[in-house]
Amino acid sequence: MAQSKTAQNKMTKDVWKRFRVSPGSPSDLSQRDPGDLMLFPDRDEAEKQSVKDGEIIDKLQDKLYAERKRALLVVLQGIDTAGKDGTIRHVFKETSPLGVVVKPFRRPSEVEAAHDFLWRAHIAAPEKGFIGVFNRSHYEDVLVGRVRKLAPKDEIEARYDQINAFEKILAENGIVVLKFMLHISKKEQGERLQARLDEKKSRWKFNADDLEDRKHWDEYMAAYEIMLDRCSTRSAPWYVIPADRKWARNAAIAAIIRTTLEEMDPKYPKPPWDPKSFVID
Amino acid sequence: MAQSKTAQNKMTKDVWKRFRVSPGSPSDLSQRDPGDLMLFPDRDEAEKQSVKDGEIIDKLQDKLYAERKRALLVVLQGIDTAGKDGTIRHVFKETSPLGVVVKPFRRPSEVEAAHDFLWRAHIAAPEKGFIGVFNRSHYEDVLVGRVRKLAPKDEIEARYDQINAFEKILAENGIVVLKFMLHISKKEQGERLQARLDEKKSRWKFNADDLEDRKHWDEYMAAYEIMLDRCSTRSAPWYVIPADRKWARNAAIAAIIRTTLEEMDPKYPKPPWDPKSFVID
Repeated sequence: MAQSKTAQNKMTKDVWKRFRVSPGSPSDLSQRDPGDLMLFPDRDEAEKQSVKDGEIIDKLQDKLYAERKRALLVVLQGIDTAGKDGTIRHVFKETSPLGVVVKPFRRPSEVEAAHDFLWRAHIAAPEKGFIGVFNRSHYEDVLVGRVRKLAPKDEIEARYDQINAFEKILAENGIVVLKFMLHISKKEQGERLQARLDEKKSRWKFNADDLEDRKHWDEYMAAYEIMLDRCSTRSAPWYVIPADRKWARNAAIAAIIRTTLEEMDPKYPKPPWDPKSFVID
Repeated sequence: MAQSKTAQNKMTKDVWKRFRVSPGSPSDLSQRDPGDLMLFPDRDEAEKQSVKDGEIIDKLQDKLYAERKRALLVVLQGIDTAGKDGTIRHVFKETSPLGVVVKPFRRPSEVEAAHDFLWRAHIAAPEKGFIGVFNRSHYEDVLVGRVRKLAPKDEIEARYDQINAFEKILAENGIVVLKFMLHISKKEQGERLQARLDEKKSRWKFNADDLEDRKHWDEYMAAYEIMLDRCSTRSAPWYVIPADRKWARNAAIAAIIRTTLEEMDPKYPKPPWDPKSFVID
């Protein structure tokens, strides 16, 4: 038992180290293998571990909610079909919708677009006691924004520091920020897009625009790399998660979220009054 | 198999009939037993059925989301400790936080209180494709509002029709509204409050205000009865769920939500284009 706990801790440290983009160091995206299974060689074991981590996440979320002092923000970014929805479905399978609030970032509405680009992200920041999940995020404004030239270049250049300042504000106010890039290969994306076309039940997910974006694959990867290089900070680090295998992706993300919550170590509050001072009749 | 399906359907019809407040008929709250186990005599079976219903709810929610045309709004009301949080935790255990949005109605904020009482409820109405859960709701304004005299009497009297009009608007715009009163006995509430005091892990949930409200038990029940009598409508019926036994409560609510979604019968959209017209390279 003690040994398995140690093995577990070592594994977790390896996950952190292997996937984290060290603040200040180049992310070397092209050197990161989307099919990397080094830490999760066995599918069955990885799936079992994810379920266990999910149960622990649920328990810790309940304490976080009781404590009402801090929050966790999970940012999910990735190219189309990278598995953002699937990650949420699997990692938070055990966590009640009571404590997890998911915010999808779609094309900005007219009202959103009339504000600065971080306005809608700040509004969606999780309340104390909650886990917030950004399904896509404010990073779209330096990804699609950059590739599709949706704003002048100097405006986009200025956004990286603005994002870092924004996330530092969150972090200094008790919101722990975890950012995951779901990293898939171009080949894997091709297969997933084809599967969406082939399977009747998933055909509705197919969007012809995704093919347009696919043509800009290299530009997107370059934009991701700049984002990782400039915005992996001590307050809010980026993790690049190998995501060609869904089970390995889920296992890595669940492990990082679980350990983050364990380090936050939320506690059930101890009210200052004496329970015997109340009489219920 | 066919027979068990028929038995299941019969059971579901019984659940609807037994717990629904027929629009236009008196709710007879005092005649409804919070400990009623007539439909769920066996705990094991009820729990198994809830899990099964939860899985079906998850599958149908995915179709609802894909379809993006309609939504389901689940309103949960009940006196303190009636089990609103527990209901959400259990009934939506299998449903991903991707598709379920929970809105807790606490004491109105200054901004909320500066608007009409239905303003915050309308803002929180679920987006098409989602299941929205109101944890407490706009009905607080005719419950605590009435008992604690938070508004002039004629204003409160006018609210019932306003609520009906509001819910009719939602229903006519594709939002199916299900309203559940979690009905517990005064004795059961006493035990649950005492348990909150006794168990260290749940002590933080105890609120001395709840004891204040408990002193007004009969007035609250009278306010609930008026609400049921006036606001169980064809567009948005009320169900009074016997809630002294948590597993019976979960089983009843899961069954009603499942069947409601089955009747809505959401479908994966069939895109108008030919999948062969796309080439992925």
